[in-house]
This record gives sequence, C-alpha cells and structure tokens, in this order.
Amino acid sequence: MLDRDIIQNRGFRNVPGGFELRLRNPNYRGVAGSLLDGVEVVVDGRKWEHDVPRITLRGRTVTLDELRAGTGVRWQLDETATVTVPEPGGLAPGVHDVEVAVYLRRPYFPPFVARSVFRATAKRVIVPDAPAGGLRYGVSLYSYSGDMYTSMTLDDAMADIADLGATGIEILGEGNIPGYPSPSPEWIDHWHRLLGDHGLTATNYGSWVDTAMWRDRDLTATEAAEQIRLDLRLAARLGFTSIRPKFGVVSADLDPHPIWREAVERSLDLAQELDIVICPEIHSPTPIRHPVTQAYLDFIERTGTGHFKLLIDTGIFQTAPVDDGHEGIEGKKRPAFLEPLAVPMDDLVEVLPYVHFIQAKFFEIDDTLADPHVPWAPIVDTLVRHGWNGWLSSEYEGRREPYRGRDQVRRQHALLRMLQKEATG
Amino acid sequence: MLDRDIIQNRGFRNVPGGFELRLRNPNYRGVAGSLLDGVEVVVDGRKWEHDVPRITLRGRTVTLDELRAGTGVRWQLDETATVTVPEPGGLAPGVHDVEVAVYLRRPYFPPFVARSVFRATAKRVIVPDAPAGGLRYGVSLYSYSGDMYTSMTLDDAMADIADLGATGIEILGEGNIPGYPSPSPEWIDHWHRLLGDHGLTATNYGSWVDTAMWRDRDLTATEAAEQIRLDLRLAARLGFTSIRPKFGVVSADLDPHPIWREAVERSLDLAQELDIVICPEIHSPTPIRHPVTQAYLDFIERTGTGHFKLLIDTGIFQTAPVDDGHEGIEGKKRPAFLEPLAVPMDDLVEVLPYVHFIQAKFFEIDDTLADPHVPWAPIVDTLVRHGWNGWLSSEYEGRREPYRGRDQVRRQHALLRMLQKEATG
Repeated sequence: MLDRDIIQNRGFRNVPGGFELRLRNPNYRGVAGSLLDGVEVVVDGRKWEHDVPRITLRGRTVTLDELRAGTGVRWQLDETATVTVPEPGGLAPGVHDVEVAVYLRRPYFPPFVARSVFRATAKRVIVPDAPAGGLRYGVSLYSYSGDMYTSMTLDDAMADIADLGATGIEILGEGNIPGYPSPSPEWIDHWHRLLGDHGLTATNYGSWVDTAMWRDRDLTATEAAEQIRLDLRLAARLGFTSIRPKFGVVSADLDPHPIWREAVERSLDLAQELDIVICPEIHSPTPIRHPVTQAYLDFIERTGTGHFKLLIDTGIFQTAPVDDGHEGIEGKKRPAFLEPLAVPMDDLVEVLPYVHFIQAKFFEIDDTLADPHVPWAPIVDTLVRHGWNGWLSSEYEGRREPYRGRDQVRRQHALLRMLQKEATG
Repeated sequence: MLDRDIIQNRGFRNVPGGFELRLRNPNYRGVAGSLLDGVEVVVDGRKWEHDVPRITLRGRTVTLDELRAGTGVRWQLDETATVTVPEPGGLAPGVHDVEVAVYLRRPYFPPFVARSVFRATAKRVIVPDAPAGGLRYGVSLYSYSGDMYTSMTLDDAMADIADLGATGIEILGEGNIPGYPSPSPEWIDHWHRLLGDHGLTATNYGSWVDTAMWRDRDLTATEAAEQIRLDLRLAARLGFTSIRPKFGVVSADLDPHPIWREAVERSLDLAQELDIVICPEIHSPTPIRHPVTQAYLDFIERTGTGHFKLLIDTGIFQTAPVDDGHEGIEGKKRPAFLEPLAVPMDDLVEVLPYVHFIQAKFFEIDDTLADPHVPWAPIVDTLVRHGWNGWLSSEYEGRREPYRGRDQVRRQHALLRMLQKEATG
C-alpha cells in the first residue's frame, strides 16, 4: 500500500549528488507524464523550483522538458513518482521539514484553472547507513501495530525495514503468521520470497506460553513444553534463530509461572537440534538485579545449555516515565512498566555475555532525535565498548497514531547509528 | 485490508433475530479463543452485556461459554470477529452510535490487570436491501479516492460495495487499472475473478480525452478517436457496458473541445460492435438546458445512434453551495461547479429517454440521513415515476478524510433506498 500522505515515508534518502523523495499521485486519476508540470520541493525552508528536480516514473528518469515532450511515461494512482533533487553532499541525517507543490495540468478543467497545484507537507527522516561491523540493526513488526493489516501488508513492512537500511526482521508468531499455528505452505513460500526480495534476515520470533489460557486451571508443564516446541518448529521453518516465549506471570514483578523451568528444559534438545536460542525477556518492571533474572542465569549455569539466553527489553533503562497510557489498561495512567526503572549500565555489562538479543524498546524520539525516556548514548556506548554484536531490534511502543511507528522507527535508527559512529569513532 | 477502527464499516447489518458487527482484534497479538472474554455492545445507548453476543471466528459461531471451554478457534490480527447480537427485528436503517468493550485476558500481565478491556466507538450505517425492480444501485471507485491504494485494495473496494448491497461497480480507467493502458493478462483475470467473487457487474468506465495533453498543440480528432477506441476496447475486455470520455474543455461553461464530434463519430461503429454506450457527462456548472447538452442531443438525433447517450452527474441538481473546497484548486473557496445550479426536475424529465447512466454525486449526508446539498427526494421520485431503470452509481466527492467516503456511500444507499421505497409505495 502507499502512504496516505502524498510525501511517502519510504524513499527519502541521499543519492550521489542530491537526495530523493517519493510521492503518490495527489489527484484522483492517473495521468500521462506530459500532464505532470513539475514538482517544487522545499526542505527546511530551502526551495528548489518546479523545473529543477528530475522525476522517475515506472523506472524511467526524466527532466521536466522530457516530460513535456512526451516520453510515454505515466503516473498511475497505485505507483509513486520519485523526485530527485540536486544537492551536493545530500541532506544531514535526521528529521527534515519537507514541502512539495505538485503541478498537474487537468484539461477537463476550464483553461484558467487547468494547471492545478497540489501541496503537501511532512516531517521525513534521512537515515544514515549503519556503520560496518558490531551491532546488527533490525525492526520488530510490533513497531507497526495498528498499521499492520490496515495500511501495511507484510511486503510493505519489509520494504519499510529494508528502506531504512536495517537487515533484520522480528515478528510476533501469533500475530504476524496468518493461520497461526498452521500457516499454509503458500504463505511460508511467500515469507521466504519476501525475505529474499528485501534482503532481510529473520531474527527473533515472539511467542507466548499462555499459562492462564483456561479459567479453571493452569497449563501443565507438558502443555507449556508443547507450546514452546510448536513455536520452535514453526520459527525454524521460517528461518528464525531465536524465539522469545512470553510466559504467563503470577505477580506484579512479572514472576513467570513456575512451570517455565520444566517447560524450557523439555524443549532444550529440540532448540539445540534446530539451533534456535530460547530467550526469556527481561522487561520492566523487572530489572536485571532481580530473582527472576537470576533464576534464568542459574538455569543457564545449571543446564550448561547454549540455547537459552537473555533477551533485554531496553524499557528497563528508562529514566523518565511515559504518560501516553497503554492499550487495554484503564483507570491508571501509568502502569508499573511505564515507570522509569533506570537499570544502571553496570548491571547490563555484568549479564552481557548471556544476552542474545536486544529489543530496542522506545516510545518517542523528537525532531532533534532526542529520546526523552531511554538513554541511548550510554546503552550504545556500553554495547560498543564491550564488543556486543547481536541484533538491536526496534520496538516502538508509543502512541498508535497511523504511520507514527513507521516514522519513529526511522528516527530511532538515525539516532542509534549516529551514536554508534560516535562510540566507535 | 482491515479498517483502522476496531469497529469495521463492513459487516454491520441485520440478520434473522438480531444484528451483526465486525471487529478487528484490538490487541497487538492474536489469541486463542479462550482468552477472548466477551464483547459488550451498546447501540444508541442500549446495552447488551459481554456474555450475550455470539462470536464468529474463522467461520465458527460460538457462545462465550463455548469460547471459555475451548473450541480451537483463534482471533488473529488479520481477521475480524463477527459479533452477533440478539434483537428481534434488528436495527432501523440509518446511522447508529455503536460502542463495544472487548474483554481479552492477557496472561503475561500481572493477574490484577490481566483481564483487559479495549473500548471503541463509531458511527456505523445499517443499509436496507434495495427494493426490487427499477433502479439499479452501484458505486464508483471515485468515492474511495484517497483510500484506494492506501487502505483499500480493489478486493476491499468490491467487498465494501457488495457488503452494502449494491451490485454495480464503476471505475476510472486511467486510475483503477494498474499498468493502464496495458494491464497484464493476470490483472484482467484477477478483475473478472473479483467481480464473480463479489457478485458485481461492471457498469461505467470513466475515461479522458486530454485534448490539452501537449503544451504546444491540441489533440487532433484522429488522436482523440484513437483514445476513445483504446478505452472502448479495454472497457469491453473488462465487461463494462458504457464509457464516459471526459473531453478537455475550452471554456468556463465546460464547452468540450470541438473535436469531440468527429472523435465520437469515428468511434461509433466500434461502440456498436462492442455494444458499449459512449456517455458524455452533464456536469455542473453546465445545466441540461445549455448549448453543450443540446449539442449532444442533436448529435444523437443526427446520427441516429443507440450508442451515444447522456450521463447525468447529480451535482447539477444541487440546491446549496459546497464549501469544503476542491483538491488542486487554490485561492477560491467555491469553484463554479460547487455553486448550486439547481436544475429543475422538469428538465431531467425531458432528457430522461436519452439518459443512460446517473452518477449519484454528493458531498455529505448527515447522521439523520439528510443531504444538505442534493435534493434526493425529488430526484428519486422523478426517476421512479418515469420508470427510469438504469444505474444510480454513488459518486462521493466530499472531504477526503480517511474512510469518510466509505461511510458516506453507505449513508447514501440507505437514504436512496428508503426514498425509492417511499416513491414506489
């Protein structure tokens, strides 16, 4: 699907000698290229006149004079036009105010209004390339909650992730797999084809062990192990290298249901056979120095397994509260997991050898790329200094306004990569 | 795609013994049916408790007790749940205030908040069945401008049209045909398959003759005829029975470029061969009693053709101005075609034998089903009294807020059908 906004989120990027942006056709009909009479572009107050940018339609790049002379190109409603603006060195990484004026001639309007102007404005993000080596950048489809299946297909989500220069995709098993737990063979083929098309690697697969699935009794350890094994097998078929089973909890501290140990232990052989790491999630309000985390570390120690490791949700490092509320929770503006837990970096350093995956949870990154809640500078610095080289997977959890997650993920990648560059530089 | 709103536009309807509505899963993950703990429904202030409605998931209809007992059903993110509420006689046709509270148990939340409530409200429209005989009800994809390709696929659009009980679909050739003017054979197959799946008939195909396509010269009559013939052939392949070539105009009165006569005349044999009616559009600010319309009538008279007839855009009957502006027109709040032209019904009666198709243009229908601009009661009454039995094809042209066109089209069909029932009753 295309973005509702005329100025698309995808495709805003630097190219040799300038920058590009993508537009959808602002009129209600497609047109021959000769009726597109130029696109004026303004970025952060600097203007490029309507006859300056080159336009790419259906893979052909032309000047305004060429459009006027007739090239056979058309601008369809279901396709974007790429507008290429000359600007040596391109635009700085980060958020820009972008304005366009699209001129379309409409012969069916009286001559004095036939040359129509369609204006649009947007804040759009230039994401710098990821620095080589070290951290690997991914995105969780959780970031696109609300947009997925309403304005984004799986193909769109992958295109977004690839467009911002990330290479990993994290999914929610029961959420992003149609027909879960038994997707059709066609869908599995489709999944692998899309991964290839977009050059993405399947990273982590979020699963659940719903211990309170039944009202009158808890799941047994056997049932819980069956659930984990089902998700391990499905994750393996889709090419994932870790799963995060989210166990039902029995306390406000998120103590997992006690069957977790036996259920995981019964799944370790299969995890080893499939070479998938089972990752319990360390999630606010549970810090690193806490019996829950310690129990996971003890389990690793005791079993000697290489297929059970920690997944860190960066919400635990939050230094300021989040007051946007949370879907499905009423009567309390700020649930416990949105309070700042402010886990110190030293605690992270201590468990880093056991950390397999990081969900880069965040709520908001502003126009200056500042995050008011999560202290990314020390987090990235810690990871770089200690040579951690796993996946940093964007997990946007802020307000679910349409398209907001997509924009915010781009901001986060711009911020994280600039911080990584500083930390390694 | 699903609607962004939890309460979907499609699927709100009366069924024997009650009414139904469709919901998308309000959480960020799919769940086993046993975790869905009921849906409370309030319509216009009347409440049905959470354990009253039956729920349909993946084609299986169950009670809350059955959900709790475990049926194997799941509520996925990409699928709707149908909620069936008992109410003898169902709901009245028209706009209703609908509220739902969806209860989902989330075992990964602390026990005291694990039963979460997700609330949603919406205005939704019950559309009565179309009265038998006489008028035929269709929808133009123009109504969905802005939504098409951003939150609606062609499949979605057809599903919307079928869901509101219309049977005709009107399209814009250069607009709704990917790869126009050369769609792939696969797309053409897809088009016919979708028509069949949704039980729809292809009605009118909007085309253009862009006489001002080139800046330095006008199209020749030969080129214009080639354009019409191209669209006739493409329309025929897609099963349409009329095309509306919108000629470039040369005056504020929308006088078509004078080549129209020769271009149409050269296309009449092909139109006859394909049995497609070529329909010039009578559109505000051009009334029925006007040289432009008279010229079309003279052409019919002179050629004796049965394949050139009028298309009436109901904007000509407008009795009040529309002040929402129009995309691409700046500096003037109310362009001429948004002024009330108030063409009298007697003029319509006079040309009715020559009218092949009616675009039921409108801008707004309020919560009481009143249209402040277009006088539907006399229009429908006139059509019924004179036994006109062509297509009345919804053409929403109001504000392009997301989903607004879809909601407004439902309102219009509710209104038109109630008026038709009154007029025939």
